[in-house]
Amino acid sequence: MEIKQVILVRRDLKMPKGKMAAQVGHGCVDCALLAKKNKNQIFNEWYESGMKKVVLYVEDLDEMIKFKNIFDRENIINSMIKDAGRTCFSQPTITVLAVGPEKEEELDKYVKDLKLV
Amino acid sequence: MEIKQVILVRRDLKMPKGKMAAQVGHGCVDCALLAKKNKNQIFNEWYESGMKKVVLYVEDLDEMIKFKNIFDRENIINSMIKDAGRTCFSQPTITVLAVGPEKEEELDKYVKDLKLV
Repeated sequence: MEIKQVILVRRDLKMPKGKMAAQVGHGCVDCALLAKKNKNQIFNEWYESGMKKVVLYVEDLDEMIKFKNIFDRENIINSMIKDAGRTCFSQPTITVLAVGPEKEEELDKYVKDLKLV
Repeated sequence: MEIKQVILVRRDLKMPKGKMAAQVGHGCVDCALLAKKNKNQIFNEWYESGMKKVVLYVEDLDEMIKFKNIFDRENIINSMIKDAGRTCFSQPTITVLAVGPEKEEELDKYVKDLKLV
């Protein structure tokens, strides 16, 4: 059984790649710390197996929120990242939703149709 | 005093942005966990101030190793990430060097001339 994180990125923001990488980094750290605290066994399995991560596009904020509601309902660790809006964006902007670590088959129920970044 | 992470990315690999984001994510998580364990005060300051991250280019593996040697010598937390080589790369490949969280002025002594991704 594989454990992974998935990070959903808003396609509509057309982030430059350095910005996108930093936002994905925020999300990965936030979710990893949540998992270490609250789902220690799954965190350890993920950590020891190489911390698999997959970065996927959602179209926009509406689609991201739809996914967030699903993960909240299913009690799957997730973290929505809001950029402060001091560099690329002129105002605070929600950029990515990081999810897991969680069992791959559980996540794939919801995200299997999303496209890789 | 600001605390930040910097993540050095190999420019010569020309990684697609999803791949780059995942590799940066690996590095950020690895260093954050090291800091939480070994430099708890600096970790907490960084975490509570929004986990600043800056993604910078190095030209190639040689330049990355030069930086790693400096950070090891200066006892600055860092983690070099090796991709397993199952997707983008045909063999295991060192992709990024994540550094810190550490005091901004301390990191900038070494990385101030590097270009933003």
